[in-house]
Amino acid sequence: MSNRRSFLKQATIGVTATGIAPLLSHARGAKIMQSNAVNRLQLGIAGYTFSKSTIQQAIAIMQRVNIKTFSLKDVFLPLNSNKAKIDEVVGAFNNAGISIYAVGVIYMKKKEDADQAFEYAKMVGVDMIVGSPVYELLPYVEQKAKAYNIRVAIHNHGPEDPEYPTPGDVYKHIKNLDSRLGLCLDIGHTQRDNIDPATAYLQFADRIIDMHIKDVTGPVKDAESVELGRGIIDIPALVKALYKKGYKGHCSFEYEKDATDPLPGLSECVGYFNGVCATVNGHHA
Amino acid sequence: MSNRRSFLKQATIGVTATGIAPLLSHARGAKIMQSNAVNRLQLGIAGYTFSKSTIQQAIAIMQRVNIKTFSLKDVFLPLNSNKAKIDEVVGAFNNAGISIYAVGVIYMKKKEDADQAFEYAKMVGVDMIVGSPVYELLPYVEQKAKAYNIRVAIHNHGPEDPEYPTPGDVYKHIKNLDSRLGLCLDIGHTQRDNIDPATAYLQFADRIIDMHIKDVTGPVKDAESVELGRGIIDIPALVKALYKKGYKGHCSFEYEKDATDPLPGLSECVGYFNGVCATVNGHHA
Repeated sequence: MSNRRSFLKQATIGVTATGIAPLLSHARGAKIMQSNAVNRLQLGIAGYTFSKSTIQQAIAIMQRVNIKTFSLKDVFLPLNSNKAKIDEVVGAFNNAGISIYAVGVIYMKKKEDADQAFEYAKMVGVDMIVGSPVYELLPYVEQKAKAYNIRVAIHNHGPEDPEYPTPGDVYKHIKNLDSRLGLCLDIGHTQRDNIDPATAYLQFADRIIDMHIKDVTGPVKDAESVELGRGIIDIPALVKALYKKGYKGHCSFEYEKDATDPLPGLSECVGYFNGVCATVNGHHA
Repeated sequence: MSNRRSFLKQATIGVTATGIAPLLSHARGAKIMQSNAVNRLQLGIAGYTFSKSTIQQAIAIMQRVNIKTFSLKDVFLPLNSNKAKIDEVVGAFNNAGISIYAVGVIYMKKKEDADQAFEYAKMVGVDMIVGSPVYELLPYVEQKAKAYNIRVAIHNHGPEDPEYPTPGDVYKHIKNLDSRLGLCLDIGHTQRDNIDPATAYLQFADRIIDMHIKDVTGPVKDAESVELGRGIIDIPALVKALYKKGYKGHCSFEYEKDATDPLPGLSECVGYFNGVCATVNGHHA
């Protein structure tokens, strides 16, 4: 099965990647499937979590936390890689039961960057680039998105970002463009700009197609990235908003705190998010 | 500060051990403290989690998951230890910022076992033994509990246990005894007997003074112990019940799945429980 088809199949089934009901043979899982098969959140991992890990370490960690979809960062696969190298890396993940649903974050300053990004995404076999194209490049990126039928989720990067600090800054630049251009809502950078992520999600839900999940210690530029629940982000409010609007994208954990040993903190994040989902979603044995 | 006093101080403050609001200097934590200072759950770790860890590994893991209270199992401190050895082990935990709130599980078949257990608990400096005394010993244990003013939380051990398989089996044997005798509700063993832990908690809340938190794969004897959320136990229902009744004891994680490397799974459990608590308790930024 191709990576794209694998992704689409998962999106349709919408259960295996959640980590909430991993044991579907038992009564509770079966009940969840029956009663709410269409209202599931899909969990993923954002590649930057593994900025200092090897591919094999990343795979082992993803298997340990039981998350099967991945947004590939170029740390594992440079943007100028040839098809053979791409197939090798994608194959390593796929052989471990992990599908790649997006690539990025990819920064684009000139047309050649966009050309490369779309060719790369096509060869990886995904239908989404998480990206940050400069304003002037947006019309060109829109053309490419249509030509390749590949979505571009523009990532807000907080107070330091001169172009897209907040989700609203992304939104105002893409709202009149083709619907393949959307937002990757980074809830940590959003909170660092003193904007509640749940509120931002509800405001821009029609164009949010990917999400980076994390927590931060304060509503300020210098806030640190921490495990979910140890910071100030209101994750229950966010999860309620996601269910309310029937969010169809991925919730990808981007855990940055312990780059050389991300497993414990990432495990805590995944547990926290699943605990919130199980409580909000109200499915009990 | 003595270990007992440290414990009592923590119980009074009721915040440091929860793991929910570790950053009290920020707005959300401050809000939680103001609005609900009396309705907190205290998290702990049950000693069997570290059945194959060293004391130093156990301490490092507890610091990593940010839990500061511990129920000491004799794997770290044999029941026949002298005062010097006890002070050494207790000191190691205390020096790392961890207080010991209970000892056990301690099995008692004859009077000498009970004599030893109470002397041990007294020297450790705790006011609770998590124990399993045979039926015939209960009147003697009751005497000792009064004489030492040390509580005994009798632990239900599931279908294999000939005396206390279910919480109800404990309850019927202690309900007419001194109130220092109570239950340590082990939710995993409870679920393996096909009893919903939240229901059991509500039924016996007046005598439940300690709790072992885990998840299991099914409502059957042979169910395996797994990370919270990966099994069938309805943790949100349990947490709602605990808040409803104002449970004052500890919720101690007993993570048994990966005895040689408990940190990742334990982290997921702690995250899950905190995520449920944050959602149920309704404290948002």
